Amino acid sequence: MTKFAIGIDLGGTYTKLALVDTKGKVSNRTKLSTAAYRTRAGLIAAIVAEVNAVLAKARLSPRKILGVGIGVPGIVDFRRGRVYNLTNVPGWENTPLKGMLEAKLDLPVLVDNDVNLMALGECRFGAGRGAKNLVCITLGTGVGGGIIIDGALYRGSAFSAGEVGHMPLKERGLPCGCGSYGCLERYVGNRYIVDELKGKILRGSPTIIKKLVNNDLSAMTPEIISKAALKGDRLSIDFWNTVGERIGVTLAGIVNLLNPERIIIGGGVADAGEPLFKSIRRTVGERALPVPGKAVKILKAKLGNDAGIIGAAALFFYPETRGRCK
Amino acid sequence: MTKFAIGIDLGGTYTKLALVDTKGKVSNRTKLSTAAYRTRAGLIAAIVAEVNAVLAKARLSPRKILGVGIGVPGIVDFRRGRVYNLTNVPGWENTPLKGMLEAKLDLPVLVDNDVNLMALGECRFGAGRGAKNLVCITLGTGVGGGIIIDGALYRGSAFSAGEVGHMPLKERGLPCGCGSYGCLERYVGNRYIVDELKGKILRGSPTIIKKLVNNDLSAMTPEIISKAALKGDRLSIDFWNTVGERIGVTLAGIVNLLNPERIIIGGGVADAGEPLFKSIRRTVGERALPVPGKAVKILKAKLGNDAGIIGAAALFFYPETRGRCK
Repeated sequence: MTKFAIGIDLGGTYTKLALVDTKGKVSNRTKLSTAAYRTRAGLIAAIVAEVNAVLAKARLSPRKILGVGIGVPGIVDFRRGRVYNLTNVPGWENTPLKGMLEAKLDLPVLVDNDVNLMALGECRFGAGRGAKNLVCITLGTGVGGGIIIDGALYRGSAFSAGEVGHMPLKERGLPCGCGSYGCLERYVGNRYIVDELKGKILRGSPTIIKKLVNNDLSAMTPEIISKAALKGDRLSIDFWNTVGERIGVTLAGIVNLLNPERIIIGGGVADAGEPLFKSIRRTVGERALPVPGKAVKILKAKLGNDAGIIGAAALFFYPETRGRCK
Repeated sequence: MTKFAIGIDLGGTYTKLALVDTKGKVSNRTKLSTAAYRTRAGLIAAIVAEVNAVLAKARLSPRKILGVGIGVPGIVDFRRGRVYNLTNVPGWENTPLKGMLEAKLDLPVLVDNDVNLMALGECRFGAGRGAKNLVCITLGTGVGGGIIIDGALYRGSAFSAGEVGHMPLKERGLPCGCGSYGCLERYVGNRYIVDELKGKILRGSPTIIKKLVNNDLSAMTPEIISKAALKGDRLSIDFWNTVGERIGVTLAGIVNLLNPERIIIGGGVADAGEPLFKSIRRTVGERALPVPGKAVKILKAKLGNDAGIIGAAALFFYPETRGRCK
C-alpha cells in the first residue's frame, strides 16, 4: 500500500503544499500567498483549510496519510515543534506550531527549519541519494545550509546548525546583517553580488548586461548575469568565477572539517550552473586536503522548488529513525 | 567487577601505554621512545612486549581486560583498523595495525586517529562530560580536531574529519605545509607563532622575553611567551590576544556550522591559559550568531597528556555504541 504525507514549505512569499508519496512523487500541488495573511492565526487557518482541501481532492483513506510536515524559514525546536522566530514573516516568535496544527488537523505534525528539510529531501530523493554524510547549501538572498550526518539530519545543540552563510570568509571584512562581519553571505548573497557587479559596470567595465537590461541596471538579477555569462560576456564569466572562489574557500573549510561525501548546492544563484560550479570545484580542489578533497562530490541540487515540500513529507517516511535519509 | 582496557598513544617522540578502568582511572603508566625503533616491526614488537608487561604487573584476570585501544597520529580506517600513513613516523604507510597486534596479543584491538581519541577521552571523562555535540581542538606544532556528534565520534566519509587546522582563516594568505594557503595552522601553529613573535622582537619591540631567554631567541617557546604574559609583558599579552582572535574567527565558523554545546581546547599552546582563552571567547562572542554563540562553552581540556590514552581505552567501554561517549 503506497503511503503519503503532506509536505508544506512556508516561505516569505508563498506557502506551498503538496501530497508526497514514499517514493518522493509529488502531486496535488497548491500554494497560498503568505503575505496576504496579516496574522499568524489567519495563515494557520488557511494552511489547515488547504490541507483538508488537498486530502478531500485526493480522496485518500486517512490510514494512508502518515502526517503533515512543515518547513519554516527560522529556528525551530524540532522535538517540541516550536518556532522561535521566522525570517521575513513577522509575528511568529515562540509559536507552538506543531501543537496548533495538530489541534486542528487529525494528523501528526512535524515542524523543522526549511533548509534542513531541503537537505533531507535532496538526501533521500535528490542529488544526495545513497550518501550518509552530506552538506546542502542554498544560495539566494540568504545563504543557508543543512547537514546530514550518518544518514540523519544534524540539528545541533540549539537547533541552529548549518549556518554556512555566516561562516567567516574573511578574517576581517565588511559588516554583515547578522551583526558580525566578513561572513560568506555578505560576499555571495543575491543582493550583494548584484550590487557589486552593478558597481563594476557603473565604473565602466564593458559588458553585454547593459543591453540585456535595456540600460536599466536596477533590473539586473543573478539570472541575467548567468545569461550574459552563457553568451560569453567576459565580465559575467569572471564574476561567477570570483563568486565561486569565495564559496569554494568556505566549502574547503567544511570539507576539511566534516569530510562529507557530497556537497549539494541549490537556490536561485546555483542556476548560474557550470561557470559557478567549475570555479567552486577548482577552489575546493586547491584548498581542501587531498583525502577529504578527493572524497567529496560537489553537485547541483536536483529537486528545485520541490525540495522543501519533499523533505517536509520525508520526515514521516522513516519514523523509526526520524529525519534519517537512509 | 571493575573492568579495564589498555590505552596506547603512539606519538612521534614517545609511545605511551597505561591501564585504564571504566571510570577513567589511569594506572601502570609506561612509555617507549618511538624514535628508538628503526622499523615498524620493531616498534610493534616493543608495544606487544610492553602490553604483556603491564598485564603481568597488574596481575589482572584476562576476563577483566576488554581490549587494547591505540591512537596514532595519522589517518586510520577505524573499521578495518588500518593505518594509511603517520605524520612524523616514517614507514607506516598502509599498515593493518589492528590485525598485526591481534595476531600477537590475545585481545581485541581498536585503532583510531589520536586527536579523535583525545576528543573521546575529554568527552567521556574530561571537559566534555555530559555533552552530546562537541568539538575538541589541539593547539601544538599542528592544529587538529575531533568531533563528537550525538554522543559518538564522527570520523567522516574517508576517516579524515576534524582537520580544523586546515580550515582557511584567510581567503588568501600564506602558503601552508598542506599545499593550500591561509590555513589556521599557518597562523597559530607552535613554530609559526614563535617565529612571528621572534620577528617582532628582532625588529625592536620591547619585551621581557629577551631577558627570560638570556638574549637567545632560539630558546623562545610558547611556554616562555606565556610566562612573559603572566608577568604583564605587553608584547606577549598582545600576541596571545592576536592568536586568540585568529582561533576565535575559525571557531566562530565552526559554532555557526555545527552549533556544538562545547568546544574543548588542548595541546601545549592552550597552556597560555586566560590571555588566550579570553581572546578566543570574546572573538567567538563577536563573530558567532546569537543562538549558537550563547549555546557554546569554550573550555580548556582537562585530561592533559592522558587524554589520548584514556580515549584509546574508552573505545572499549561502550561496545554497544562503539566510540560513543554517553
